[in-house]
Amino acid sequence: MSKTRVAVLGATGMIGQRFVQMLEDHPYFEIEGLYASERSEGKKLRDVLKVRDYVYKDETLDTKIEAMDLSKVAKYARVAFSGVPSELAGKTESELAEKGMAVFTNAGAHRMDKDVSILIPEVNPSHLNSVKDQATYKNGGYIVTNANCSTTGMSCPLAAIRNAYGLNFVSVSTYQALSGAGYPGVPSLDTVGNVIPYIGGEEEKMEAEIAKILGTYENKTFNFANFKTLANCARVPVIDGHLESLVIKMDETPSVEKLTETLRSFTGEPQSLKLPSAPVEPIIVRSENNRPQPALDSLAGEPIRARGMSTVVGRIRKSDEYYKLFVLSHNTLRGGAGGSVLNAELAKAKGLL
Amino acid sequence: MSKTRVAVLGATGMIGQRFVQMLEDHPYFEIEGLYASERSEGKKLRDVLKVRDYVYKDETLDTKIEAMDLSKVAKYARVAFSGVPSELAGKTESELAEKGMAVFTNAGAHRMDKDVSILIPEVNPSHLNSVKDQATYKNGGYIVTNANCSTTGMSCPLAAIRNAYGLNFVSVSTYQALSGAGYPGVPSLDTVGNVIPYIGGEEEKMEAEIAKILGTYENKTFNFANFKTLANCARVPVIDGHLESLVIKMDETPSVEKLTETLRSFTGEPQSLKLPSAPVEPIIVRSENNRPQPALDSLAGEPIRARGMSTVVGRIRKSDEYYKLFVLSHNTLRGGAGGSVLNAELAKAKGLL
Amino acid sequence: MSKTRVAVLGATGMIGQRFVQMLEDHPYFEIEGLYASERSEGKKLRDVLKVRDYVYKDETLDTKIEAMDLSKVAKYARVAFSGVPSELAGKTESELAEKGMAVFTNAGAHRMDKDVSILIPEVNPSHLNSVKDQATYKNGGYIVTNANCSTTGMSCPLAAIRNAYGLNFVSVSTYQALSGAGYPGVPSLDTVGNVIPYIGGEEEKMEAEIAKILGTYENKTFNFANFKTLANCARVPVIDGHLESLVIKMDETPSVEKLTETLRSFTGEPQSLKLPSAPVEPIIVRSENNRPQPALDSLAGEPIRARGMSTVVGRIRKSDEYYKLFVLSHNTLRGGAGGSVLNAELAKAKGLL
Amino acid sequence: MSKTRVAVLGATGMIGQRFVQMLEDHPYFEIEGLYASERSEGKKLRDVLKVRDYVYKDETLDTKIEAMDLSKVAKYARVAFSGVPSELAGKTESELAEKGMAVFTNAGAHRMDKDVSILIPEVNPSHLNSVKDQATYKNGGYIVTNANCSTTGMSCPLAAIRNAYGLNFVSVSTYQALSGAGYPGVPSLDTVGNVIPYIGGEEEKMEAEIAKILGTYENKTFNFANFKTLANCARVPVIDGHLESLVIKMDETPSVEKLTETLRSFTGEPQSLKLPSAPVEPIIVRSENNRPQPALDSLAGEPIRARGMSTVVGRIRKSDEYYKLFVLSHNTLRGGAGGSVLNAELAKAKGLL
Repeated sequence: MSKTRVAVLGATGMIGQRFVQMLEDHPYFEIEGLYASERSEGKKLRDVLKVRDYVYKDETLDTKIEAMDLSKVAKYARVAFSGVPSELAGKTESELAEKGMAVFTNAGAHRMDKDVSILIPEVNPSHLNSVKDQATYKNGGYIVTNANCSTTGMSCPLAAIRNAYGLNFVSVSTYQALSGAGYPGVPSLDTVGNVIPYIGGEEEKMEAEIAKILGTYENKTFNFANFKTLANCARVPVIDGHLESLVIKMDETPSVEKLTETLRSFTGEPQSLKLPSAPVEPIIVRSENNRPQPALDSLAGEPIRARGMSTVVGRIRKSDEYYKLFVLSHNTLRGGAGGSVLNAELAKAKGLL
Repeated sequence: MSKTRVAVLGATGMIGQRFVQMLEDHPYFEIEGLYASERSEGKKLRDVLKVRDYVYKDETLDTKIEAMDLSKVAKYARVAFSGVPSELAGKTESELAEKGMAVFTNAGAHRMDKDVSILIPEVNPSHLNSVKDQATYKNGGYIVTNANCSTTGMSCPLAAIRNAYGLNFVSVSTYQALSGAGYPGVPSLDTVGNVIPYIGGEEEKMEAEIAKILGTYENKTFNFANFKTLANCARVPVIDGHLESLVIKMDETPSVEKLTETLRSFTGEPQSLKLPSAPVEPIIVRSENNRPQPALDSLAGEPIRARGMSTVVGRIRKSDEYYKLFVLSHNTLRGGAGGSVLNAELAKAKGLL
Repeated sequence: MSKTRVAVLGATGMIGQRFVQMLEDHPYFEIEGLYASERSEGKKLRDVLKVRDYVYKDETLDTKIEAMDLSKVAKYARVAFSGVPSELAGKTESELAEKGMAVFTNAGAHRMDKDVSILIPEVNPSHLNSVKDQATYKNGGYIVTNANCSTTGMSCPLAAIRNAYGLNFVSVSTYQALSGAGYPGVPSLDTVGNVIPYIGGEEEKMEAEIAKILGTYENKTFNFANFKTLANCARVPVIDGHLESLVIKMDETPSVEKLTETLRSFTGEPQSLKLPSAPVEPIIVRSENNRPQPALDSLAGEPIRARGMSTVVGRIRKSDEYYKLFVLSHNTLRGGAGGSVLNAELAKAKGLL
Repeated sequence: MSKTRVAVLGATGMIGQRFVQMLEDHPYFEIEGLYASERSEGKKLRDVLKVRDYVYKDETLDTKIEAMDLSKVAKYARVAFSGVPSELAGKTESELAEKGMAVFTNAGAHRMDKDVSILIPEVNPSHLNSVKDQATYKNGGYIVTNANCSTTGMSCPLAAIRNAYGLNFVSVSTYQALSGAGYPGVPSLDTVGNVIPYIGGEEEKMEAEIAKILGTYENKTFNFANFKTLANCARVPVIDGHLESLVIKMDETPSVEKLTETLRSFTGEPQSLKLPSAPVEPIIVRSENNRPQPALDSLAGEPIRARGMSTVVGRIRKSDEYYKLFVLSHNTLRGGAGGSVLNAELAKAKGLL
């Protein structure tokens, strides 16, 4: 299989740098260029590096950032991985699709478009078909979005539950990491010894996106799932990893043991296709009574290329017809760059690249 | 009114020191002695001080800690304020009541006893009558508990809501401060950049206590309120102040404006009796979109003696028949020592001391 | 004594808000207006509040911010307290002095001017005379600066030492609080579980300012003290309070006990004049082996108006001819607004206002 | 080369777990058993895991902890890596040496013994010869210590400087990580938004150990280097990585560029012998003005087995005859388990195992 040439847009940001991390030595993709705003033009990646836990190769760190000339991007790359700020993403990504590029984006601008999928390959791989119904597809251009980072965290567990038992009601409260706000993001004076119970637009995204993700795509139409979701979102002083507490009600009332087994055995197309960034276990269920924890579990996922790609679930409890659990997901890997890379891997495997 | 002599038990702990703070220059009470385990005997309060934000008077700081000789405590004091560790509290407090003392305790040991109230004076002042049905009352001895700190935070808002609109369902997730675990409490290696989604016994307490608090005491019996409560508890790196996210369902569906007004205008016996530690506003509703925050709002409460005694509510939202809100309460003041001091003030005002 | 009308410039910043705090109900001064950039014009102080630990009065919180029209400022106020950002302060403050205002500033722009003092009233009260040699003095206008926050912390201890024993050498390393960088200041992604060993310009300021402060003002000339100072500055995740470790060498070699007594008994003109914001003890020496700590000691200072105005010293050790100690000072009170308010109080007491 | 069988003592602690990490798949050593106090007997490593950033292999995580039966340890292993708490280490390690084991320890108990070296292979490899002068050597038993974690950080830079320019004076202030205090270690209530300017015994260790390390071993005697060292030690809320600020005076006064080159080119026996855990660059000098930072630089070191083994230096400045710099070293890798593993590798290469 020949490698597809890809460009990383927004390479100076938290998500952009995670794209670079996930694409180093990738079996399907080859980085053609790193792009960002003109302000960073000519700087090396090492000069703008913000990711704490990844040790890039020297040649990667020495890569120079280029200014984002869309014609140039489209000329040399087939795929654009977009970590562009939301306010710019809508227009930028549309243009790239029109120029024939396959755009895999972390930005929210196109998520609720009527012909654009919010793709999570373990959950709704058939939604990828929506690209064929996009106007730009005839020239090879299309857009695929990943979910908002906080939506991503609950997607695999809720899909597993919905598939097995039906789903009626979800009340979710988040404990979200600072990296989700980008850099410079949240001022340190607001975060030392504090929690901020507000993240602009986040609750609305969670409530809307999960219904689209768990819905169907048929006859060129997304049909939304119809359970009720209620989200409360808060920012905590954690670097990476969104923790979420869930209260759910299903159609059935399985035992905790059975529910645990359902979550543990959940698997999907990325696993059967053995996509490079697919975690062997999409959902890891921990049995300790004080897990998952962001500091210990955010990077969960095997093999090494899939670190940070598993969702970690713990503390599954039952109270009458309700169930309580905690879920954790790495917000800039699985819930950010990693999600889009996995989406592109699925597209490649399906012959769309 | 002559001052009642009081003893502080567990004076070296986080709660004990908040008792001392709330009792300095108190109009009803006079501290007779500070008591703790033998290990601290003879140390001055200043040598074991752990509270960050309070500046005690020099004479208070120089007070010597005494070992906890129950006979001595009962001989010199009428009231025992108990910040004793839970595992010791049950037996110790029973003995003190038998010796004729009025015990106002922060410990959980007696909370679910069938003749002991979990008293929150704005919410269930009539529950104080249960002391007259305790076997030790004939000698003047009785026990009054306050609620667990995380239960306290939601008690006033839920009472206001229940009174006005009925209450069917509560899903609550907590962001709890470190001081709730006492000292030394949670290791710093577990808390830097982390959240711990487990606090032993806390969820069970919240679910059980709120039903007792919002129930009735009639014919020597506590009748529990019968709405459903589902709690998820987590520890965050905050010093003081428990933040909680709530999703609730009522019998009625008031507008957000009307619900806000209901919460803002909530008041109770502590306010009408002008108890010294009663906050003028039991519930403060903030209109900013990012409040309440532990670092900014934990000490809310007027007048100065009531700092940390108000519950702060924010971000009231409506979604179909559900409502979402955040509440914040100071866990070692209102949810700890302050709660018990207010209980004792009510007892004094009612002629029970 | 009639109250002098004062304006607060930069009222939306960390220092500006500490000015407001220190000037509430001040016996010498009356706030005429709060000024900031046009962006904040018309907002109430409560809408831009960033200080965590101070509970302002409601009428203060409701004060509206005005845009900074220098002619208007000069027309209505005699004194300008300046918390203006450094890049604007130089020109702004010069203009206000030319318009006849007495400017007491926290900004660094004029600190090294040849006719402007860096005034610390306990240390170099005679430097205040330099105002009479400023060109604008004939119209009543002049500028007085306080020291940089990190310089302030070591000033009183080093003055006490120099006065008693001479001073040859100072090696100082700082552990500086986040509030020193203003708001939004340092991104939280850089501070969780981290230390940043760089604060632009800070080391140069410490090394130059301390020599001017401990020098003399004679014949219209500042003569700099000539001991060697070497500073290493770092930012730590603390809200308020700069901690500093010092290694010093003096001309004499007193015992640790004698040095301790020298520091403890240090006092100056603010104390003899009983200036309102003067702490009874300019230097508090703590005997515990783990103090001073930012979280516990930053607000040290009596009476209540002087909270945060004492310097706290601890861990005095001797090693041959060297001495080691830690000092702590509140960077936005004593090392910021409080320093300038104390300077203005000295000017008032000396008949310069 | 056949692998030497090794035991890890204190395997449940922060250092013990770093030993396990460094010994996984080691080319020279094979783990024979993990030992700890009886309290942990039978638990799996995964049940007591505290290291955040390392992903152990499943078979390692499943290894069972054994109680520390010294006869058994000595029977099956040739080498003991000791992460035993200091109060037990002295006796335990002496017994193991008497039983013929080579003990490589992180504990401080034997560091200042007259025939035991504090070995840092890049700095003083000849000190390893001291083992031959230990009484137990005739039976194959001996003890080699590594330096205290805070001493280790400055050892390579000071050795490089001493070798090139002589060394007269060192003033060092530390910003030490929480993992240095072990687990549970420092209470979180003491560390949120705080710095603790005291670490028991640490300053004395730094001042004494560095003189032994940079001295000579001749005629069965350690001769101490005679420059003056003054240490101020403080604990900051960082997980791993001790940052240190240094002020030094040498015999010569090289330019900053020359000094930088001296540090960059420093190398020693571990590099020439290509020991498995030796970093290619013992000292990495960073040119950015805000480095080294614990969160970004603690794990520096190539190849992968040497991660956390390099010392990172930055901000080299000159002021007259003095030099200022910051150094950073991973306290539980290079300054803990990694230091002892490197010591054992040197012993193996020298035929002492």
